[in-house]
Amino acid sequence: MASLEDIGVAAAINILSACAFFLAFSILRIQPINDRVYFPKWYLRGLRSSLLGAGAFANKFVNVDFRSYIKFLNWMPAALEMPEPELIHHAGLDSAVYLRIYLLGIKIFVPIAFLAFAVVMPVNWTSGCLQGSKLTYSNIDKLSISNVPLKSDRFWTHLVMAYAFTFWTCYILKREYHIVASMRVHFVASEYRHPDQFTVLVRNVPPDPDEPISELVEHFFLVNHPDHYLTHQVVYNANKLSSLVSQKKSKQNLLDYHNLKYSRNQTKRPSKKTGFVGLWGSKVDAIDFYTSEVARLSEEIALEKDKITKDSNYIMPAAFVSFRTRWGAAVCAQTQQCRNPSIWLTEWAPEPRDVYWDNMAVPYVSLSIRRLIIAVAFFFLTFFFMIPIAFVQSLANIEGIEKAVPFLEPIIEVKVIKSLIQGFLPGIALKIFLIFLPSILMLMSKFEGFISLSTLERRSATRYYIFQFINVFLGSIITGTAFQQLDEFTHQSANDIPKIIGVSIPMKATFFITYIMVDGWAGCAAEILRLKPLIFYHLKNFFLVKTKRDRIEAMDPGTFGFNSGEPQIQLYFLLGLVYAVGTPILLPFIVVFFGLAYVVYRHQIINVYNQEYESAAAFWPDVHGRIVVALVVSQLLLMGLLSTKEAAHLTPFLIALPVLTIWFHRYCKARHEPAFKKYPLQEAMMKDTLEKARESNLNLKEFLQSAYIHPFFKGCDDSDDDEMMEEWVQEPVVVQTKRQSRRNTPLASKQSCSLSSSGD
Amino acid sequence: MASLEDIGVAAAINILSACAFFLAFSILRIQPINDRVYFPKWYLRGLRSSLLGAGAFANKFVNVDFRSYIKFLNWMPAALEMPEPELIHHAGLDSAVYLRIYLLGIKIFVPIAFLAFAVVMPVNWTSGCLQGSKLTYSNIDKLSISNVPLKSDRFWTHLVMAYAFTFWTCYILKREYHIVASMRVHFVASEYRHPDQFTVLVRNVPPDPDEPISELVEHFFLVNHPDHYLTHQVVYNANKLSSLVSQKKSKQNLLDYHNLKYSRNQTKRPSKKTGFVGLWGSKVDAIDFYTSEVARLSEEIALEKDKITKDSNYIMPAAFVSFRTRWGAAVCAQTQQCRNPSIWLTEWAPEPRDVYWDNMAVPYVSLSIRRLIIAVAFFFLTFFFMIPIAFVQSLANIEGIEKAVPFLEPIIEVKVIKSLIQGFLPGIALKIFLIFLPSILMLMSKFEGFISLSTLERRSATRYYIFQFINVFLGSIITGTAFQQLDEFTHQSANDIPKIIGVSIPMKATFFITYIMVDGWAGCAAEILRLKPLIFYHLKNFFLVKTKRDRIEAMDPGTFGFNSGEPQIQLYFLLGLVYAVGTPILLPFIVVFFGLAYVVYRHQIINVYNQEYESAAAFWPDVHGRIVVALVVSQLLLMGLLSTKEAAHLTPFLIALPVLTIWFHRYCKARHEPAFKKYPLQEAMMKDTLEKARESNLNLKEFLQSAYIHPFFKGCDDSDDDEMMEEWVQEPVVVQTKRQSRRNTPLASKQSCSLSSSGD
Repeated sequence: MASLEDIGVAAAINILSACAFFLAFSILRIQPINDRVYFPKWYLRGLRSSLLGAGAFANKFVNVDFRSYIKFLNWMPAALEMPEPELIHHAGLDSAVYLRIYLLGIKIFVPIAFLAFAVVMPVNWTSGCLQGSKLTYSNIDKLSISNVPLKSDRFWTHLVMAYAFTFWTCYILKREYHIVASMRVHFVASEYRHPDQFTVLVRNVPPDPDEPISELVEHFFLVNHPDHYLTHQVVYNANKLSSLVSQKKSKQNLLDYHNLKYSRNQTKRPSKKTGFVGLWGSKVDAIDFYTSEVARLSEEIALEKDKITKDSNYIMPAAFVSFRTRWGAAVCAQTQQCRNPSIWLTEWAPEPRDVYWDNMAVPYVSLSIRRLIIAVAFFFLTFFFMIPIAFVQSLANIEGIEKAVPFLEPIIEVKVIKSLIQGFLPGIALKIFLIFLPSILMLMSKFEGFISLSTLERRSATRYYIFQFINVFLGSIITGTAFQQLDEFTHQSANDIPKIIGVSIPMKATFFITYIMVDGWAGCAAEILRLKPLIFYHLKNFFLVKTKRDRIEAMDPGTFGFNSGEPQIQLYFLLGLVYAVGTPILLPFIVVFFGLAYVVYRHQIINVYNQEYESAAAFWPDVHGRIVVALVVSQLLLMGLLSTKEAAHLTPFLIALPVLTIWFHRYCKARHEPAFKKYPLQEAMMKDTLEKARESNLNLKEFLQSAYIHPFFKGCDDSDDDEMMEEWVQEPVVVQTKRQSRRNTPLASKQSCSLSSSGD
Repeated sequence: MASLEDIGVAAAINILSACAFFLAFSILRIQPINDRVYFPKWYLRGLRSSLLGAGAFANKFVNVDFRSYIKFLNWMPAALEMPEPELIHHAGLDSAVYLRIYLLGIKIFVPIAFLAFAVVMPVNWTSGCLQGSKLTYSNIDKLSISNVPLKSDRFWTHLVMAYAFTFWTCYILKREYHIVASMRVHFVASEYRHPDQFTVLVRNVPPDPDEPISELVEHFFLVNHPDHYLTHQVVYNANKLSSLVSQKKSKQNLLDYHNLKYSRNQTKRPSKKTGFVGLWGSKVDAIDFYTSEVARLSEEIALEKDKITKDSNYIMPAAFVSFRTRWGAAVCAQTQQCRNPSIWLTEWAPEPRDVYWDNMAVPYVSLSIRRLIIAVAFFFLTFFFMIPIAFVQSLANIEGIEKAVPFLEPIIEVKVIKSLIQGFLPGIALKIFLIFLPSILMLMSKFEGFISLSTLERRSATRYYIFQFINVFLGSIITGTAFQQLDEFTHQSANDIPKIIGVSIPMKATFFITYIMVDGWAGCAAEILRLKPLIFYHLKNFFLVKTKRDRIEAMDPGTFGFNSGEPQIQLYFLLGLVYAVGTPILLPFIVVFFGLAYVVYRHQIINVYNQEYESAAAFWPDVHGRIVVALVVSQLLLMGLLSTKEAAHLTPFLIALPVLTIWFHRYCKARHEPAFKKYPLQEAMMKDTLEKARESNLNLKEFLQSAYIHPFFKGCDDSDDDEMMEEWVQEPVVVQTKRQSRRNTPLASKQSCSLSSSGD
């Protein structure tokens, strides 16, 4: 077991590596050539234009202003400067609330850490149960609950602390839920007119032999919402079209690549082979080949578009129905339309950018079967994912590689390389699986048939959290695969499970401290460096970029990735709450993580990420719920731990804790969750009345007519859907300040603060 | 362990006692003097008028027509004769659907019994594992799964049967859910105008310093539902008034009793003592005393009524809001009104008869605390109810009685009586507790703050089911109190619990067979005899009845009692499904129970019970859900049983069963439950349009004005609320056939069938 010194060394290494990342970042970000990698958000918002083309040649690529190198950490206060209302205006409510999760971690754990260090730690340290025993122990263990002897009355301290921590966490959670709910309500209320405020998605329109779907929808809503129905848009099945468009895009990229190559070296026309991945087949001229391919695909796309608009088989049994008033839409979205609850299903239309078009046509019965399949698949994924990985690992050994690529044998047989490969190979299959896991979970959610990106991400996040809870948290505490645990747990009594885990918890403290430093501290620092986008941007810039738009596409700002990011944070909440009472030495590491991550992600959200959709913080109930789960888990484990310490007389007092916590959760759910699921009629009516008074001659129909058309139909060109999307979100017209970069602090100026207040 | 012969003897005894009950019933019911005990429903519906006063004196009290004694079982076919649509018209949809639960039992278990007898029984019988062993065994055991040797391949039969039974049960459940849902939809659609179709209950109206509640409500709904709001009624706090009224009623009863006594024996004025329960205090003339008391209370009631209507403190923050159209009401009931989800809570108003007035003023925060308290209280009630009972039992011993009432000592000391008391006393506390349990659970539900009788009953039924499941089902299988079980289970592994229970199940078959015969068969027969109402009716009739109305009040028809009746049936479903695969010998007993109970309750519903409210079968999702629970329990227990038989290779096949069953439940829930919770807008619009076309000059406001006034304000007289209630339910005017009783078959004549068809 590691001593305090070991941890100090590990901390030093990790702090140094984090500092190295930060240093690299500070040097790279002030190079003009990387400007689009580290500040894409400003380009996308149109607040920063290209630096290339102005100034001296050297200035274009390398920063020669040496003063800027000195203040290499000054992005940190800069990231914290932007006030929250401006941040909401700049990056959306989702991003602003996502940052509040880190803030929540700081708010919860800083007082808990102080209290634990002031009370729990001295009690543990002075107990001296381990001193006399013959067990090997370290200083860390002397600071943990393991040091308190059996049946000691000192456990009352831990009990009281458990209550104090629970009440504090619940208080902060409740306050935060309240704040986020009112932020959401205020955001929705102050938003300008949006198509999704007036629009309801209706699915599973029953087939009618006499009427086409479009007329059927119109008649149904004219009859059942006579005073409110305005217009509707049917949904086309454009899945084939979208695959054609993406094919064309990749061919176009290759064409551009070859063109560029030819233009640089005009001596040789580039050629390619027509067979699989260009490895065999007859040789043809690459530029001619791709030009003809692109032309063919353009033709096919035009044909397909024509077919879609004319052939009624392409119309899906779904439609976006728009209403005259927000009130009418709110009513339709929140009520059942038809006696049969599996047809004419209505729900709020997602934001146009948020729609996941491919799932529009999933029929009702299939939905419930799909959910069963995914539930079973996820169970197997969670508990048996080691089986295929072990199989791959058994294949990927030295002998296998030598057989497959015999000419590498002499290199592999070098002793150093051999041992390196042998140490590295078994892990690689697992690592690859873990990297792809969020994408696998996303695919699962897509198969389940959700129709908006935000729900897809939230669903994937839930699954990822469960996976991490079982395989990272439990898997690290009780070593062994998840399936072995499952098998063991079903053979244990319900009482024993918390005992087994509870007892192991203090012993794993050093492991988790290291984990927090590597995954949390160094991971954060790596996130800000953006190594992958940096490399890809320069590759693309070199091989593909011709026009300004190409450069914009090459930027790849990414998003904050709720589906993988949030479960990662939740793991820290879980660790913090579980260790708070027993081994509080872990808490400072978690506090540092939350602080660091808050600064890093605030910087990234301001300067880099470009959120694809705006769900107005619809994910908060999930975040809240998972922290409550962590709280209950920590209480159960404390109960298990104390019962092995023969302090069973405390158990009745501990039982009240989870009961109260669960009740607190139900109370919060009833009190605050409706703000995230429902749209109150009073609000709708208020906004309708205001709007009528302000703009009495508004042509709403025109405004809504084309809001929910499939992106590929928006314009004649099929690649400008992002821009089209942007147009829909009609923001109040403001004079945008096309600021030239203030190189070190790319923050909005104080003037642009007025933007947020005019967002009303 | 009982042999087949023992069970035969027990069956004979129970059949004989059931026959004796039936015989007594057939003799008692044809006596004219008991007519109001056995046919109150017909009196209440006005289809049967008093028999007294017509014909010869003897005929008035005793039936002298000896032919009618011969056909003593002919009520049975008579009870089955009434077709279902007429039954719905006669007794309401709730009653008709309640009967379908028994029918469902027959539908599920008759084919299962046949299949089990044809396949499982021979397989068990011919296995002969017990023959060679030294264990004591009976013929019953030879018919059960215990007879199959370890690791036998014959367990495949049981596996296949488990699948067959599950699929059959699910198929029938799905079909029945569909039928009941469409019955409900049809019933609601064909109902004539009801106030609850237009009315929404709004609760937690926030206090406003500037406006009284009535105006506040009006303004709020005029603003937020401008085209639909019609009128509203505030809710008064009449709890004190209702206690005064009930006091007056009891005094009035005593006055009537003394008056009657004096009129029979004019020699002596009755007197009473004014102290506690009339045991001490000064002696006064009873008639004068009660006359003055009644007068005083009448005055107080008048005062209180006056106060309620004038003092604004008596107005609760709740109101019944009525709308112009069903569409408007449906919209308001199913949406959230205000940004804060804890104020302006709207929900469908219950039927006027169904309103539970006392809970109208429970504030929102208190609601969630009350639920926590009741949840904890119910947990203790379920697991620790034996503690107070054991305490009472320890007090209630012979010595204690002798000390309390010393003059009884010589009687008690007689040996026979002493042993009788000693055998009887310990059980009596438990028996009393079990009799009062449904009332205790009802009180709990009332404390939780539900606002309609139907929800109160459904909630109590759920709790009663859980209590029975733990204390009767599990308690009989694993002897010991529920708390001991809980303690044991938390120390067992999750795998072992189904094993322990599964193994005990076949051993308890004879116990449950006896239980079914005593509780089910004889219980049914006792139900039809109505011994308690019979005695009470005659007592009241003798002491209190003066007018025709008194006689109507003395009838006490009762209801079918969903809160205690349905959990009882569910226990039989549970037993049937659990024993179907292992010990099918139990099935015929259950089938007989369902058949007998169906006939008995059909008779009672037609002739006796008077349902207090009509919830349009809102309880069906609960019924369905509990049968699914029973199915899953039976599958888990089979898994446990088979794993002790070392047939673990079958377990993977069995695991799929509960997964599929739970998925089936979720599918049914999504597909059919909305019909019980929501009111589709299409329906509402259809009925509105029809009504507008038919009765264009209807004054809806007048119709709704007084629908939701507290019963005590309905008329000047406070005892005629039942009649007032009846008035509200405006049924189509039909010429009621005041039929004189056809003594043996008090069924509606064929002509009255037309009633049901005109109910549209």
